[in-house]
Amino acid sequence: MPSNRIVVIGGVACGPKAASRARRRDPDAEITLLEKGSLISYAGCGMPYYVEGLVEDRDHLMQTPAGARRDAAFFRAVKDIAVLTRTLATRVDRGAHVVHARNLDTGEELVAPYDKLVLATGGMPLVPRIEGTELSGVYRLYHPDEAAAVRETLMSGAVKNAVIVGGGLIGMEMAEALSTHGVSITVVEMMDHLLPALLDHEPAAFLTKHLKVNDVNVVTGTKVTALLADDVGHVRAVQTDAGELPAEFVLLSIGVRPNVELARECGLALGETGALAVNDRLQTSDPDIYAGGDCVECTHLITGRKCFVPLGSTANKHGRIIGDNVTGGDATFRGIVGTTVFKTYDFNVARTGLSEAQARKEGYEVITALSPAPDRAHYMPGNQPILTKLVAEAGSGRLLGAQVVGPGEAVKRIDVMAVALTMGATVEDLADFDLGYAPPYAPAVDNLATAANIIRNKRDGLATTLTPAEVKAKLDSGAEFVWLDVRSPAEVKEMQFDDARVVHIPLGKLRDRAGELPKDKEIVAYCKISLRGYEAQRTLDGLGFPNVCFLDGGIVGWPYGGVVKGE
Amino acid sequence: MPSNRIVVIGGVACGPKAASRARRRDPDAEITLLEKGSLISYAGCGMPYYVEGLVEDRDHLMQTPAGARRDAAFFRAVKDIAVLTRTLATRVDRGAHVVHARNLDTGEELVAPYDKLVLATGGMPLVPRIEGTELSGVYRLYHPDEAAAVRETLMSGAVKNAVIVGGGLIGMEMAEALSTHGVSITVVEMMDHLLPALLDHEPAAFLTKHLKVNDVNVVTGTKVTALLADDVGHVRAVQTDAGELPAEFVLLSIGVRPNVELARECGLALGETGALAVNDRLQTSDPDIYAGGDCVECTHLITGRKCFVPLGSTANKHGRIIGDNVTGGDATFRGIVGTTVFKTYDFNVARTGLSEAQARKEGYEVITALSPAPDRAHYMPGNQPILTKLVAEAGSGRLLGAQVVGPGEAVKRIDVMAVALTMGATVEDLADFDLGYAPPYAPAVDNLATAANIIRNKRDGLATTLTPAEVKAKLDSGAEFVWLDVRSPAEVKEMQFDDARVVHIPLGKLRDRAGELPKDKEIVAYCKISLRGYEAQRTLDGLGFPNVCFLDGGIVGWPYGGVVKGE
Repeated sequence: MPSNRIVVIGGVACGPKAASRARRRDPDAEITLLEKGSLISYAGCGMPYYVEGLVEDRDHLMQTPAGARRDAAFFRAVKDIAVLTRTLATRVDRGAHVVHARNLDTGEELVAPYDKLVLATGGMPLVPRIEGTELSGVYRLYHPDEAAAVRETLMSGAVKNAVIVGGGLIGMEMAEALSTHGVSITVVEMMDHLLPALLDHEPAAFLTKHLKVNDVNVVTGTKVTALLADDVGHVRAVQTDAGELPAEFVLLSIGVRPNVELARECGLALGETGALAVNDRLQTSDPDIYAGGDCVECTHLITGRKCFVPLGSTANKHGRIIGDNVTGGDATFRGIVGTTVFKTYDFNVARTGLSEAQARKEGYEVITALSPAPDRAHYMPGNQPILTKLVAEAGSGRLLGAQVVGPGEAVKRIDVMAVALTMGATVEDLADFDLGYAPPYAPAVDNLATAANIIRNKRDGLATTLTPAEVKAKLDSGAEFVWLDVRSPAEVKEMQFDDARVVHIPLGKLRDRAGELPKDKEIVAYCKISLRGYEAQRTLDGLGFPNVCFLDGGIVGWPYGGVVKGE
Repeated sequence: MPSNRIVVIGGVACGPKAASRARRRDPDAEITLLEKGSLISYAGCGMPYYVEGLVEDRDHLMQTPAGARRDAAFFRAVKDIAVLTRTLATRVDRGAHVVHARNLDTGEELVAPYDKLVLATGGMPLVPRIEGTELSGVYRLYHPDEAAAVRETLMSGAVKNAVIVGGGLIGMEMAEALSTHGVSITVVEMMDHLLPALLDHEPAAFLTKHLKVNDVNVVTGTKVTALLADDVGHVRAVQTDAGELPAEFVLLSIGVRPNVELARECGLALGETGALAVNDRLQTSDPDIYAGGDCVECTHLITGRKCFVPLGSTANKHGRIIGDNVTGGDATFRGIVGTTVFKTYDFNVARTGLSEAQARKEGYEVITALSPAPDRAHYMPGNQPILTKLVAEAGSGRLLGAQVVGPGEAVKRIDVMAVALTMGATVEDLADFDLGYAPPYAPAVDNLATAANIIRNKRDGLATTLTPAEVKAKLDSGAEFVWLDVRSPAEVKEMQFDDARVVHIPLGKLRDRAGELPKDKEIVAYCKISLRGYEAQRTLDGLGFPNVCFLDGGIVGWPYGGVVKGE
């Protein structure tokens, strides 16, 4: 009887990790890895930066930190793992415990017997069901070979106009890369704001403003209906339900689907999301077959439900756990909280848990905070704004999710939130976490603590707010109210709401001049970021005004138009 | 009967926060704040950056984010709070519920009756009991007036040599400021490494290297015995038990003590740390007197014991809680985990929880990881190294503390750890937290997850390591062993250990050339950061070598000398 035979299908992230971990635990196992492409163990997430030119050489995406190339020879020499590239697994015979595969260059068939099989078949960018997706000039950026082609095309200078279909992650990351190459960019999103699966509309609006500053044309609420060809079969335009957009370059970025064909064909159970179903040991419905990475679904630790969030970080965690379990170990994976972060231009976008929209859809009664503020002590040069949106359960104060976006340090706050969500923390916990404080890194009251306190003030009836959407509806309906700007005259000069209902009394004069305000009308106070708006509301409450609230997030958090330079 | 009379003593951080919060909750309270200095509500933590010139104007430290000056007029107009500056509280008569105070300019005595009293008397930098601390040119940097004097002195160009006594926080932050002014700096620390209350010796050694690169002379294990005067009473040198150091400028940075004289005199209970004792509502032994900020002790959430860690962030949290409780609320403060972060030159120092030394002293059986690695995807330009030291309880895997230092993003990791420690997380939890991953922000396996996995590998018997201290002892004792360098020839050329016991076999050749190694000798493998060292250990284990381990932290984590450029 030979030693443990482990076969791994898929050679990008989870597969090589599982194989390497298995080897470190079991020096005698026979480990074979099958990969249909010619490359293995590459950093797919680095492709936008290679296209941009920030990562100079594509080979850097395939190297260890010490500069060794992670190829078949490396895996053989260092890890005693047999890697077969250009080898497509065509069928799993679960009864016979063998994988059938074919060499894509020679056509040679091979049979790999296994005791334990690992499916790490990954995912693929979705292709919309419209005409023209097969045209030349249409990309998805799912493999380093494609990235090389994209970079070459862009460097040739042949691309003037690009359309990114769907404001997905890769699309956002690629926008910056396209700008670097001098391309005019339009992003077309079907829903009413960018990244609807990740962001609520206020953070999305903050992002959209930044994209527009970088000359990206953002078109929302618009459906792409076809990709149009020139006479040599190259894409020339994108047809939408709102007209045609010229484009010699189209990037499809509408999401990712799991590669589950092989698993489905051999009868393994798929989950409700369409990805492979696995238990917390990452075992499929066949106890000798494990699966991880972009082809499986995970448990969402907030909702307890299954979700499909393909990410390189999760794939690596899965790889280690599978490496344990195929060599006699008993490791488990609890799940994820839906953390996603990316950088586009000088803007950091970070989110975790449930958005407000998602939380409401899940049936939670929610309470939120919207807080724009500097990311460190406001007197420190180099401080940058971030907009923090925090979502909690109304009754219990349990944290449900957060979105932090802006030029400032957003990812740190989301990492804090990811841990807080995983550990079941409340807004009370968040307000008092002993986070690192020194002026170069954070304000004395961290942005997250401020957001938590806003929620507590709302819940305790101290703070009465209207969301931007509620104020917008009020404005549009022509409702009568006092729109009270409590900023300094200098700030008003810089920007102000262009509306006749605006009354300007700086906070420092409010106690003296409160008599100028009517007691029989609703008063909606605001300032730059909402802290003075809150102070104004408490002041007027204390002076006996019966109907005062303030605008959540202030003028900086306002996601709509209507803000003009003051005179 | 008048409304609730609240008197607050101390006007820097906790005091104004408590007063403001009380006002927002109770519009009718009579709120009075007494401050012995002329300034209130200033950002004391910003002083090193004002001295450096990074913050141009001292007034910026006293302004709101919107640019309003936080002075008595501001507190009166905006918050209806009576602020009396230059007013020293001299006695609290608890029976009569009054505070006696004196105006320091006019000598006028006043009596402030209270229903609730708030002590926010802060802390003061400690002065060592040696001769000469009263000389001119000797500073502690505890007030903006002193900061202004320091900046003026430095800008005059009169200071050539500075000595920082005690490697404390302010000392480290001020070193950079002094360098900006062209001053030669020596740091004198009594213990055997810098910041012994915060860092273990490996992270401290990493910091010391960076200070030396910036021409800071670091002298440890040396006691300052006196400050010596020139003939006009200005400091001219620092006398130590290892000789004299010339200095026209001396900064005392040996720690902070709580200001508790007023509290002690009126019979309030002090805690074991010497700071004011408070319950979790921040109530002192007198139920009508609350206290917070730098004059009180906190509960350490790991040990459950009281500790004294004065910080502006904690003071602000305390202020809010006290503001609630003096206006009929019932807010509580759980405690802290000892998070401290600071920046010096281009180096970030961040720590939380217990160091290894502290954990051992507390009686924990500990297991640690030492992991130097890039702070983001290694192929991304701009990545920077950080050294992560993680401390966990051996049996349970419960996290006890972490230290992250280096030019890379350290504070983010410590914020994650602060939450993890507060919520009672284990190394298993840490390895699988859904932290934000994208190449500009983190490696696919975050540095913290790597450190957690190192601890798991050690605990599970997969990884066998020697700490740098253990290897150093072995080297110094002349022990026979094979010191196996598995790095590439190019890396060896860059730097290597200068020792005859070193044998060099690159990891990629190890399986082929293992026959060159003796099976009857101990083999200690290492590489740059210890990942390949671990791989080498597992490879040789698998090949039947009975006595293999690797150097924790690799050559980058090595805190001692003996590393030379290879030939």
